[in-house]
Amino acid sequence: MLKLNWKCTDISVLGQEHGLNIEQEFNDYAGKISDIIKSLNQRKDKPGECLQWMNLGYNEETVWYVKEFASMVEGRFDNILVLGIGGSVLGGIAVTEALLKPYWNMLSAEQRNNLPKIFFLDNIDPDTINGLLAVLDLRKTLVNVITKSGDTAETMSQFMVVKNLMQEALGDDYRKNIVATTDKKMGILRQLADQEGYKIFYVPDDIGGRFSVFSSVGLVPFALVGLDIDKIINGIKDIDLELKNTDIHQNIAAQFALIHYLMDTKKGKRSTVLMPYSSRLKYIPDWYVQLIAESLGKKYNRAGEIVNAGLTPIKAYGATAQHTKLQLFNEGPNDKVVTFIRVGEFDTTLDIPKIFEYTGIGYLGGKTVNDLLRAEMYSTKVSLVDNQRPSLSITIDKIDEYNIAQLLYMLEVQTAISGELYNINAFDQPGVEQVKDYMYALMGRAGYEGSATSLREKMGIMS
Amino acid sequence: MLKLNWKCTDISVLGQEHGLNIEQEFNDYAGKISDIIKSLNQRKDKPGECLQWMNLGYNEETVWYVKEFASMVEGRFDNILVLGIGGSVLGGIAVTEALLKPYWNMLSAEQRNNLPKIFFLDNIDPDTINGLLAVLDLRKTLVNVITKSGDTAETMSQFMVVKNLMQEALGDDYRKNIVATTDKKMGILRQLADQEGYKIFYVPDDIGGRFSVFSSVGLVPFALVGLDIDKIINGIKDIDLELKNTDIHQNIAAQFALIHYLMDTKKGKRSTVLMPYSSRLKYIPDWYVQLIAESLGKKYNRAGEIVNAGLTPIKAYGATAQHTKLQLFNEGPNDKVVTFIRVGEFDTTLDIPKIFEYTGIGYLGGKTVNDLLRAEMYSTKVSLVDNQRPSLSITIDKIDEYNIAQLLYMLEVQTAISGELYNINAFDQPGVEQVKDYMYALMGRAGYEGSATSLREKMGIMS
Repeated sequence: MLKLNWKCTDISVLGQEHGLNIEQEFNDYAGKISDIIKSLNQRKDKPGECLQWMNLGYNEETVWYVKEFASMVEGRFDNILVLGIGGSVLGGIAVTEALLKPYWNMLSAEQRNNLPKIFFLDNIDPDTINGLLAVLDLRKTLVNVITKSGDTAETMSQFMVVKNLMQEALGDDYRKNIVATTDKKMGILRQLADQEGYKIFYVPDDIGGRFSVFSSVGLVPFALVGLDIDKIINGIKDIDLELKNTDIHQNIAAQFALIHYLMDTKKGKRSTVLMPYSSRLKYIPDWYVQLIAESLGKKYNRAGEIVNAGLTPIKAYGATAQHTKLQLFNEGPNDKVVTFIRVGEFDTTLDIPKIFEYTGIGYLGGKTVNDLLRAEMYSTKVSLVDNQRPSLSITIDKIDEYNIAQLLYMLEVQTAISGELYNINAFDQPGVEQVKDYMYALMGRAGYEGSATSLREKMGIMS
Repeated sequence: MLKLNWKCTDISVLGQEHGLNIEQEFNDYAGKISDIIKSLNQRKDKPGECLQWMNLGYNEETVWYVKEFASMVEGRFDNILVLGIGGSVLGGIAVTEALLKPYWNMLSAEQRNNLPKIFFLDNIDPDTINGLLAVLDLRKTLVNVITKSGDTAETMSQFMVVKNLMQEALGDDYRKNIVATTDKKMGILRQLADQEGYKIFYVPDDIGGRFSVFSSVGLVPFALVGLDIDKIINGIKDIDLELKNTDIHQNIAAQFALIHYLMDTKKGKRSTVLMPYSSRLKYIPDWYVQLIAESLGKKYNRAGEIVNAGLTPIKAYGATAQHTKLQLFNEGPNDKVVTFIRVGEFDTTLDIPKIFEYTGIGYLGGKTVNDLLRAEMYSTKVSLVDNQRPSLSITIDKIDEYNIAQLLYMLEVQTAISGELYNINAFDQPGVEQVKDYMYALMGRAGYEGSATSLREKMGIMS
């Protein structure tokens, strides 16, 4: 079970200037929070509200289809290649890195229980794509191309390159090596998948990319590398019930959201740092960064006023970040809330041998690396308190399907609650639409010739 | 040659509220900048000033020794395993990721020209370390343990684990598989290396971890995987001359530093985003994040006043970050300066085939992925201007030893200049010393018993 400890944001620990009177605040906001949670749950099935991700714990049909597909192709492929960008892959990267054995792609087939390696192509760097194509045998690779709209330029250009190479290598059979994850009705990828005969999975309506990890977007790659997607769904289902609780004292997503909101608006803490003490969890902050940046970074509020809202999310992981960012967190501007993620129990223990006993590192011998990592985390928390810097702690019992799913789902729910507190739309991204039009103009897409000229003028200042 | 374009920070492009009158500012600060550059160059050889990294372009002797060692062990090892944390590995990770062929560790020996794979262990996660040890054949692995002080707990606990396993696998010969990079005179690692007979390279005095990438800290791993360290040193030497120029109009490090300083102090831009448009450069922002966070995040200025200075550095890379962070950059708080890194020419070209011509993605066919990445970058820059968000652009001709070294060295010099502008000590890290004491107390290191008790009390609020 996920636990949240917020004591290091409380006035009793941090003092008046940087601490919140949490008990008081929880009471003051109890009504508002209750209304928000009720409202989210009432609106969740309404088209256009973009809250369908709140139903992904009750999605037995998709889970069944995904598992059936995974067992059908079992043993046929050495590699899974996921094509996508942003929300289409960040959840996949975060969850597989957390749950697969470390260094998965370097393990022998036997060490992988004959499950495939997995690669995510999340960018359009020519050198990196060419490099990956030199590593993969496409004949033994299942390509999962993910774009809801079906016309994401980065993803579809990757796909056009890969599709042609697969056709060269496999002839007409190449179709059997492609799975498309896209919209049910609309878009070019949907259309191509039909025409060419690719296997298709649907991204349900009203689920944005950054909230899609537990839809087919994430479930398909998870199942293909042998993760237990039933446990993932059970994790969400169980915590969803807890997070429907309208009492802020009982709802950790509401607590997480409210504390960040108040720290921002009352105490000037405009950054949120997510800092798991675990290397396996190190891509979860990347997923969180997108979730927060795109959901809360908004020019207008729902009343149409210019607010330029938004927390700046920052990735970290311990103990490493103690040697990179902690100096800034402790001594720089006091404008951040650090959230630790503590793993209750690691899968393995690593003993530090009792050697070099009579030297300055002798104290390490006979301990475990697990002990050391825990000591580092507590030391860092106390040092933040010493410097009057607020922090939260999330504890997960262990790193498995059930707990990781709960962690991510809780962070999604808290993001939705935050959006309501800021009174902004957490589910659109108007600030990047113009970029696409500019890009279409520069790439010569029909219908965008007009803006190309003025764009080139603006670009004159840049080269 | 490195180029800096700052036009998108100028008042003529951004307007009064968010733009600087650059010409005016350069003139106003010409004297101060000139004094700073003179002062840094005068002080650089003075013990205790921590400016010895400014001499690393003139370090023929070390380069010679490193090359000799690399050629001596050539062909003997399948893997290089670097043990270190923070500044001991961030430069190594950034540079090898940029300069080795993509997916280096997945390539066949032939594709790697029989050069070794390289692994960096930058944390103390038991699961990840156990996982790596299941992948590596330690008998064919050269371990490079890097810690200047010699008693960094994370690095030395890794080393204690690995050393014992190597001794089990290799008997007494294990010594031949270890290279220590540490202080010339002091510390436990220095002492152990002597006693046990490891090869040693020295980290010169007055070079902090975050400024150490061009010392033996970086050069040893670079040479071992076949990078041309002469070209690296030549790159630094050439740009060092340019950056000694006291005229701000001719010195891009001074321009970079001053613009960020003024954007922070006059326009409230407290974050600095480094955003290369390249996957190969994606770990350079991680290195930059440490450089900025630890150097500029300071409680006191040199006059002993509490200032809590510091820019918050943010990692990004394009085009990916357009789908993760750009929404926030464009619409959220206008408190960031984004620095693009543009690669003049990629090593390879990747054609997008002319398929799906009569669909909405037909415009991509016949273009290259290189074209698309460039179009994305320009589109993003123009969209930032549209939203009155300041940005800089650094152009590097190509991704090679010479240019990458220049990029990193310029960022180091600009950091030193920034420290002078803020009037802080850019070379210490007092905010993380206390953490070490707490950790020693928790781990039972002799001499730290006193603080253990009060520490456990403070920890009571956290569990």
